Amino acid sequence: MVLLNDDFLLKTDVARKLFHEYAEDLPIIDYHCHLEPKEIYENKNYANISQIWINEGLYGDHYKWRLERDHGVPEELITGDGDDYDKFVAWAKTIDNALGSPLYEWSHLELRRFFGINKRLNAETAKEIWDETNRQLATPAFTPRALISRSNVQVVVTTDAPESDLKYHALLAKENLAFKVLPGMRPDDAFNITGDGYVDYLKQLGASASITITSFKSLKEALTQRVQFFADHGGKIADLGLNTYYYAEATDDELEAIFQKGVKNESLTTEENNQFVTALVQVMMELAQKHDWVLQYHVNVARSQNKPMFDKIGPNTGFDSVGTQADLSEQIRRLFYNAQTKGIMPKTIFYSLNPNDWMAIATLLGNFQEGSVQKMHLGAGWWFNDTHDGMESQMKLYANVGMFPNFLGMLTDSRSFLSYPRHEYFRRVLCDVLGQWVSDGQAPEDLDYLGGIVKRISYSNARDYFGFFNK
Amino acid sequence: MVLLNDDFLLKTDVARKLFHEYAEDLPIIDYHCHLEPKEIYENKNYANISQIWINEGLYGDHYKWRLERDHGVPEELITGDGDDYDKFVAWAKTIDNALGSPLYEWSHLELRRFFGINKRLNAETAKEIWDETNRQLATPAFTPRALISRSNVQVVVTTDAPESDLKYHALLAKENLAFKVLPGMRPDDAFNITGDGYVDYLKQLGASASITITSFKSLKEALTQRVQFFADHGGKIADLGLNTYYYAEATDDELEAIFQKGVKNESLTTEENNQFVTALVQVMMELAQKHDWVLQYHVNVARSQNKPMFDKIGPNTGFDSVGTQADLSEQIRRLFYNAQTKGIMPKTIFYSLNPNDWMAIATLLGNFQEGSVQKMHLGAGWWFNDTHDGMESQMKLYANVGMFPNFLGMLTDSRSFLSYPRHEYFRRVLCDVLGQWVSDGQAPEDLDYLGGIVKRISYSNARDYFGFFNK
Amino acid sequence: MVLLNDDFLLKTDVARKLFHEYAEDLPIIDYHCHLEPKEIYENKNYANISQIWINEGLYGDHYKWRLERDHGVPEELITGDGDDYDKFVAWAKTIDNALGSPLYEWSHLELRRFFGINKRLNAETAKEIWDETNRQLATPAFTPRALISRSNVQVVVTTDAPESDLKYHALLAKENLAFKVLPGMRPDDAFNITGDGYVDYLKQLGASASITITSFKSLKEALTQRVQFFADHGGKIADLGLNTYYYAEATDDELEAIFQKGVKNESLTTEENNQFVTALVQVMMELAQKHDWVLQYHVNVARSQNKPMFDKIGPNTGFDSVGTQADLSEQIRRLFYNAQTKGIMPKTIFYSLNPNDWMAIATLLGNFQEGSVQKMHLGAGWWFNDTHDGMESQMKLYANVGMFPNFLGMLTDSRSFLSYPRHEYFRRVLCDVLGQWVSDGQAPEDLDYLGGIVKRISYSNARDYFGFFNK
Repeated sequence: MVLLNDDFLLKTDVARKLFHEYAEDLPIIDYHCHLEPKEIYENKNYANISQIWINEGLYGDHYKWRLERDHGVPEELITGDGDDYDKFVAWAKTIDNALGSPLYEWSHLELRRFFGINKRLNAETAKEIWDETNRQLATPAFTPRALISRSNVQVVVTTDAPESDLKYHALLAKENLAFKVLPGMRPDDAFNITGDGYVDYLKQLGASASITITSFKSLKEALTQRVQFFADHGGKIADLGLNTYYYAEATDDELEAIFQKGVKNESLTTEENNQFVTALVQVMMELAQKHDWVLQYHVNVARSQNKPMFDKIGPNTGFDSVGTQADLSEQIRRLFYNAQTKGIMPKTIFYSLNPNDWMAIATLLGNFQEGSVQKMHLGAGWWFNDTHDGMESQMKLYANVGMFPNFLGMLTDSRSFLSYPRHEYFRRVLCDVLGQWVSDGQAPEDLDYLGGIVKRISYSNARDYFGFFNK
Repeated sequence: MVLLNDDFLLKTDVARKLFHEYAEDLPIIDYHCHLEPKEIYENKNYANISQIWINEGLYGDHYKWRLERDHGVPEELITGDGDDYDKFVAWAKTIDNALGSPLYEWSHLELRRFFGINKRLNAETAKEIWDETNRQLATPAFTPRALISRSNVQVVVTTDAPESDLKYHALLAKENLAFKVLPGMRPDDAFNITGDGYVDYLKQLGASASITITSFKSLKEALTQRVQFFADHGGKIADLGLNTYYYAEATDDELEAIFQKGVKNESLTTEENNQFVTALVQVMMELAQKHDWVLQYHVNVARSQNKPMFDKIGPNTGFDSVGTQADLSEQIRRLFYNAQTKGIMPKTIFYSLNPNDWMAIATLLGNFQEGSVQKMHLGAGWWFNDTHDGMESQMKLYANVGMFPNFLGMLTDSRSFLSYPRHEYFRRVLCDVLGQWVSDGQAPEDLDYLGGIVKRISYSNARDYFGFFNK
Repeated sequence: MVLLNDDFLLKTDVARKLFHEYAEDLPIIDYHCHLEPKEIYENKNYANISQIWINEGLYGDHYKWRLERDHGVPEELITGDGDDYDKFVAWAKTIDNALGSPLYEWSHLELRRFFGINKRLNAETAKEIWDETNRQLATPAFTPRALISRSNVQVVVTTDAPESDLKYHALLAKENLAFKVLPGMRPDDAFNITGDGYVDYLKQLGASASITITSFKSLKEALTQRVQFFADHGGKIADLGLNTYYYAEATDDELEAIFQKGVKNESLTTEENNQFVTALVQVMMELAQKHDWVLQYHVNVARSQNKPMFDKIGPNTGFDSVGTQADLSEQIRRLFYNAQTKGIMPKTIFYSLNPNDWMAIATLLGNFQEGSVQKMHLGAGWWFNDTHDGMESQMKLYANVGMFPNFLGMLTDSRSFLSYPRHEYFRRVLCDVLGQWVSDGQAPEDLDYLGGIVKRISYSNARDYFGFFNK
């Protein structure tokens, strides 16, 4: 079979029909990504393929950098100040030696879908592909907005600090675009009470809310105000990045004492830090519940694990790995059990980077379903699990322990405007799984029935669950 | 392929032949279930399909309830006092939206095998299926005994408290039935020293054994007496439900002190509770070994994880999930290592709800094989793992690290007389796995050889291992 | 399909072509095994098939013994002094009842490849196969050297204590053989400060290095000397067997105090033992880095878990299982993070017996890539994972999170000269995985491109990474 041909990943007739007749043309709801609204607003063309695909800066793709280090590319041509063409050639050689990596498929798929280039990328084709992509990148079809539109995207949810003024979201809202760009609140900095700049951070957050933050209570008030502000700008989602998590309850008095220690830079005990984090998670739960928002958890990650490289080039540069907290599921179980008891459980999507957690978490989530729409969801295979195998095993696990037709489907989690073909990839895996079930006699060969499920998981479940088009 | 057609799950010719020529007609040894002997004895017809399939009460099926909550069915139509027909329609709509769930297959399979209904269950067919199933349910072919007999069951092992008088087992034994109904002892309540009603429980247990339980020693004596009583009624199995487990040894004096604290409602330390539980597990090991019983462990479960719902409708209502004890395998390793050293290791089947535990436990069990019959076994995929994927991965894991032809095969763990087709499902998966091995050249295409293995795993291994027909 | 026919495990045309045209005839680099250099040097024929295949002693195969215990073979015919023919018959019956075990395939493959025997081994064929194998074993084609040569092996790396004089390696080096036999240092005994014979052991180790070991510092000096000695004999590898591991740093003074307590047989705290082990691991890291050696970790094993049998017949007799240390990955993460910070990270291959660890560890390793050749590698599926399923899932995991064409491929880890067909088995799985990718459209159908990857993973990556032919 030809690499990434029309029917790639589709092993059965049923799968092929489902993809081509039901899935392929559906719009995209991209409910979590790391695109910059400013870039979308300014809508500039990119100087060359390295700028949009590989380089450091706003859209630096640390997935690619990591693979380049496997391949022995010198850092100068990864995050350093090497020449953009040289960087592209280094990447071309890297990808040619990366068969089996999801990046091998994604990269070729992006060349095919956006640039119409069907050649394999390698040392021989690098120059030609450099020239051709750069030629195209200079055209109007390659601005951020054009790339979003061409990908049939209806909603883009960005990742924004709670203190953000959402200026570009506001400007974009006036532009009458065919797609929405909505803010997603990621309050990670508010949790970092043991970090150096925490007092300064609170000033910034307080200023955005016109509140002087002098207590845990006023911190909560500021976040309350900011969630309202985000909601006023169409926000529907908050996202918690908990690399590790330990459940620990505290009284209001304890929290205030911990807060005061924190802002005075007195060192907190591990227990105190856990109490502070738990209390803030609960604040976000309450706020999400009140606004009918969705709270997304991204957990069990070991970040910045190479200290010498961190000191040189900072975070998010490709030195992160799957988390190793063995009792993560147990801690989340305690958090959720108690949140349900307190009545503060919001709509929830849960992602763990460590697939060992999935079975326990997926079934745990099933303990809290209530209301007329499925409230709690295991998230799609994330990051290192965002592969054919990872997607397929996440889907089968979801199906085995839950109600698969309710699954919310794919998100890009991307930093690049070229990443939308991951939705195509996901839909192919989805159609293939359904095709497998039909082959095994586990599902009826009823294309309209199956096609309806494909449509829901590929598109309409996410659209309806988040309520992006409500009111 | 048609849903659940004659050859469903059977991907190869070899698999099809093995199933149809060797597996399909074998009797069933159902060595662990939650059926009520009283119901079998009384042998009454059911008023309607909701009563036998969905409803609260003795045969309430919390697997189904859970899925209905995913689907947004109001609790009134799940465990509440809604009308039985309305409940059935709610279930019909639920199952139509549950493709990929094992319940989708089981439910349709049960309609096919018992009622001859080949239609898919959904909002459109609900009324017709309600009428037809109810018509059939009123006939003699649908009493509990008839359902068991029609399913070709030879042995049913129920789950009984040690203090049970086994009245219905005794009555059934006199009925000259084509199948045996044997008791299985589940002494969970005896372990619950920190529970509120423990003193009352001990009175009940003591009364059944004609022993006043005033010490750990007399508790052990009572259990010793009860195991003998069960053995006299054909009992061959005890079952331990350890949601979590921590190994902790204690001296006799310590145990007595712990016991006294417990019965005085003084609070035990975690260590003391672990010591008490460990000592009782060891008592059950000793007793099982002495009687050549099989000790079954069901571990790593997080039960009743929704407090508000627990307060409303109690346990076993669909709010349980896969356990999150990360060091479960380590604690069991200590327990078993020391039991082997003490010489008290009985025949054992081990089930963990968390498949992360399987590899370590399956290989651990292999350290204690002795005697002419394989003594230690990893149990079949349990509860949330009781799916095509779960069964297949459990089988392959068992095969990779043990002696697969000795595997004890399937049990229903069921609360419904309609659950026996799960054995058919299991046998199909089994035949399909063997077919895969033949296709891959890993197994010889020798149908009699393979069929012998199919027969052993589907039927005769369990029959012989437990010794149900000994003497 | 016929058992182990020409195309076994090869499901696609691409897989078949890759195996037969690219993989089949490649030499073997067996970079980790437990063969005895003395046996290779002495090069004697074996008295019978039981001696080379099953028996106690140097090449006792505890994988087989374990399976025999599953089958109920009396210990006399396993590790006892039963007759060799009776032992062979017991094994023949065992293997006939072991379909699905990797041993079923390996054993038949070895009969086919070395003896040309295509019959299945069972009670009926045992006598005939006994006679025929024994006849052949007496011929020159069945000496250790002949078996190695016939298997097309270029390098054998043995497992040697640091105090070994490497006498047989030196003698073999003078023999002008077609293959190299190189030492691999396994300093496990040096870590065992809490063991009974530690002082005696230090004397032995010290004598080999002409150093009196009276301190941690002199212990390090002795190891430094021994690594140099091994390197002078062509050594390129050290291997750490850490059944469990807990990271704990110590100052030099603390280490010396711990050392003194240890040699005085004063009992160490758990923390002190962890500090000592961590410090020695770091010594081995430093030494490996300095010599451009590869450090191999074999972790998470529960050894000798049956005390009564251990007391009777000692270690490595088939009572080991997959380790249960739940936080193993977390401890290794700390070790590696700090080693990278200290700048002492050598080339590394990491094996965990518990596949739950693989995802976290494989991605962790990716954080430390540097230099022009990929430095850090997840090892092949090991021991209980050395199966079709285990190999395939290890390969796919490696591919999903790393750069698969750089994978170092297979090693036998074997105690028998008949184990080399495991390389064939591995290559078949490899070619089949690539064939699956082509079928799915995830890889191009470019046989030379794919064949190049096959060649690298099957052979040349290991050859080049270790530098066996450098200088």
